[in-house]
Amino acid sequence: MMEAFKAHLEQVINISDDEFESILSFFSTKTFEKHTYLIKIGEPAPYEYFLLRGLVKAYQTDRSGRQYIVHFGLEGWWILEIEAFQRGTNATLDVECLEDTVVLYISATDKERLCLSIPKMEHFFRVKSGWAHAALQERMLMDMNASTIERYDALIRQDPSLYHRVSQNLLASYLGVTSETLSRLTST
Amino acid sequence: MMEAFKAHLEQVINISDDEFESILSFFSTKTFEKHTYLIKIGEPAPYEYFLLRGLVKAYQTDRSGRQYIVHFGLEGWWILEIEAFQRGTNATLDVECLEDTVVLYISATDKERLCLSIPKMEHFFRVKSGWAHAALQERMLMDMNASTIERYDALIRQDPSLYHRVSQNLLASYLGVTSETLSRLTST
Repeated sequence: MMEAFKAHLEQVINISDDEFESILSFFSTKTFEKHTYLIKIGEPAPYEYFLLRGLVKAYQTDRSGRQYIVHFGLEGWWILEIEAFQRGTNATLDVECLEDTVVLYISATDKERLCLSIPKMEHFFRVKSGWAHAALQERMLMDMNASTIERYDALIRQDPSLYHRVSQNLLASYLGVTSETLSRLTST
Repeated sequence: MMEAFKAHLEQVINISDDEFESILSFFSTKTFEKHTYLIKIGEPAPYEYFLLRGLVKAYQTDRSGRQYIVHFGLEGWWILEIEAFQRGTNATLDVECLEDTVVLYISATDKERLCLSIPKMEHFFRVKSGWAHAALQERMLMDMNASTIERYDALIRQDPSLYHRVSQNLLASYLGVTSETLSRLTST
């Protein structure tokens, strides 16, 4: 699984095996069972996670119990509650594992140490942060401006395995429609 | 105005006057008149702008002519169409000046050169990018989950001068309601 992490870093930077070992020394690994939480609303969220294996959903729940899914996350995604991670505040998002999930994780302090110690990683995180921002902006524009079926197609195009790994109920929740509506839209 | 830019950088990094001169040498300045565009849909968007003075709106327009305002931007904001800037594709957003606007701007290539030449700036942009991402996520969660008046209050709290500088029509467009609805909500 660590080879996948190295390949992920090499999308942006070139690293030797020795550098990779140094980078890895800043991270720890952990396995979360299905239905446990990486991040809980109202609690500190001091870690940034890299998903080696598994699937999560990041969501908020309103007063009536309705879930708003902000995003799914699967192999190759970085997961954090960015405000809580950066400012040490409590999380305003839940991140729950939909499958058994294996992660690398790093604290905010260790991330700063890593970036100071290995400047290539500062570059990596700057570039990745830009990509994440672009993806979030595209998601927001689609939420504003695209039809439900266009948004469904975009989600499945981006992560085809979601089609098999996530229930129609959850896909409908991500799209902000009922599962009946989604079923009707995707059957036509 | 350059003092404001230096103070902005010093929110994240400490820089000497000499370093500031070096940083500035990577940027150019330009004035855009009211109603001209920093970024046009369908055209390349090769620059990142820092607003020294002025006010812009970033928006998309749907087939029926309805405007979706993604954000306003004023003094101290960085403005770019991140996907087009990073990948050299064409812009999918319009950014129009609502007032005469003075900017510093830098190309993607020069931004990479700046980060290589002055590593503190790599750090600056990584940290700022994280903040921008956090702000965008907060906006998206509020769009999903908060009332119109809560979103109005959050916008004005973040940038109080918008209350005087932007028409009620545009604020309503940002909130996704008619100006009549906004007027009713804010008069009670």
